[in-house]
Order: sequence, then C-alpha cells, then structure tokens
Amino acid sequence: MDKARDQDGWIGKGPFDAAFQDAAELVGKRWVGAVIWAVVHGKHRFAEIRNAIPGISDRLLAERLKELVDRDILCHRDTGDPVPGYHLTPRGAALRRVLIALHDWAKQR
Amino acid sequence: MDKARDQDGWIGKGPFDAAFQDAAELVGKRWVGAVIWAVVHGKHRFAEIRNAIPGISDRLLAERLKELVDRDILCHRDTGDPVPGYHLTPRGAALRRVLIALHDWAKQR
Repeated sequence: MDKARDQDGWIGKGPFDAAFQDAAELVGKRWVGAVIWAVVHGKHRFAEIRNAIPGISDRLLAERLKELVDRDILCHRDTGDPVPGYHLTPRGAALRRVLIALHDWAKQR
Repeated sequence: MDKARDQDGWIGKGPFDAAFQDAAELVGKRWVGAVIWAVVHGKHRFAEIRNAIPGISDRLLAERLKELVDRDILCHRDTGDPVPGYHLTPRGAALRRVLIALHDWAKQR
C-alpha cells in the first residue's frame, strides 16, 4: 500500500476512513477508557473491574468487555490460568498508548 | 499536581476523568477527524472543506466547525487574512498527532 505521509505521519491519500472512524467511536464510548485503565492496573476479574469503576452497571460492563474482547483489545483467560480474567492483548497494549496520548492532550490547557 | 506514571506514562491516580471522556467523545464524533484532515490539507474555506468530505451536510459541517472553534482546535481568520478561513490552533496541531496515532492503530491488523 502506497502511503504518502507528511512530516507528522499524516496519510495524504484521503480522509480518515471507516477503520479510523470505527476506532474513534470505540474510544469515545463511555467507560472504554476506564475499563482498559482498570485492567492495566491489575483488575482482571469482572467484580474487580466493576468495583474499580464507580457508576458502571453490570450490564454495561459486560457489554463493554464483550466488545473489547471481540475487537481483540482484551482477552479472557479462564480459571485454569494463574491470573484468570481479562487481560490486554498486544493490540490492546498499543491502543493504551494512544489513550495515554489523548489523555495528556485533554489535560493540556 | 502529583502524578504517578508508569513506564508508558499512564497516570496512576485514578481512572480517566471527565476531561479525557470529553476529548474521547469529541474524537469519536462523526466527521471530526475528516474536518481536521481537510484543514490540514489546505482546505480552509467552508465550501472547500465541505467539498473535501463526501456526504457531510452544510448544517453538520457548520456544527462541527463551531464546536472545534469553541474548543480551541480550529480558529477562524477573516477575509482580511492572506489565507482566510479555518486553521488549526496549536492545540489543534497537538490533537492532530493523537489522531494520527489512533489512525495508525486502527490500520494495524
């Protein structure tokens, strides 16, 4: 794929496409950042994650976890694992770095 | 402000807060990436930006531009300027780098 990038790495081939829009909408969903944050900080079981996020409902947390697993951002290891529960995939770890950059941008005022 | 960061710069003081959520929802709004992309690529006047984004309506483009100006991501220079129209602010240029990172993440499969 021939990509023409400018100095900042912007792709000059056309506007942000469906894959970008999809990722941007995921990041913008309520609780997505908080769920990833909780997992990064050692909350792996459903109840641990729920307790780390004030205000989230079981139903909504289950929905977000399912979506994050479906998108290969989290994986779920079963009770046979030394640390059972939800973990970041390599793809999730890469997204985490983007979320940090967005967080830092949000705090720059 | 005392920030405890891990090696990736993650802030260990609590989950992503309102400022992050606000920024994430902005990024996730339809057309926001495309509008910034158009401005970066030399489209500055309303009609130029609209023509660069297939499918956007005048009403929605006006709404997005107003929001991006209100949030200090774009500024509008009047007809006395050598290049009248919409331009990235320094804060907008910083967001652009985050959008590029998100775009690249979205394309990694």
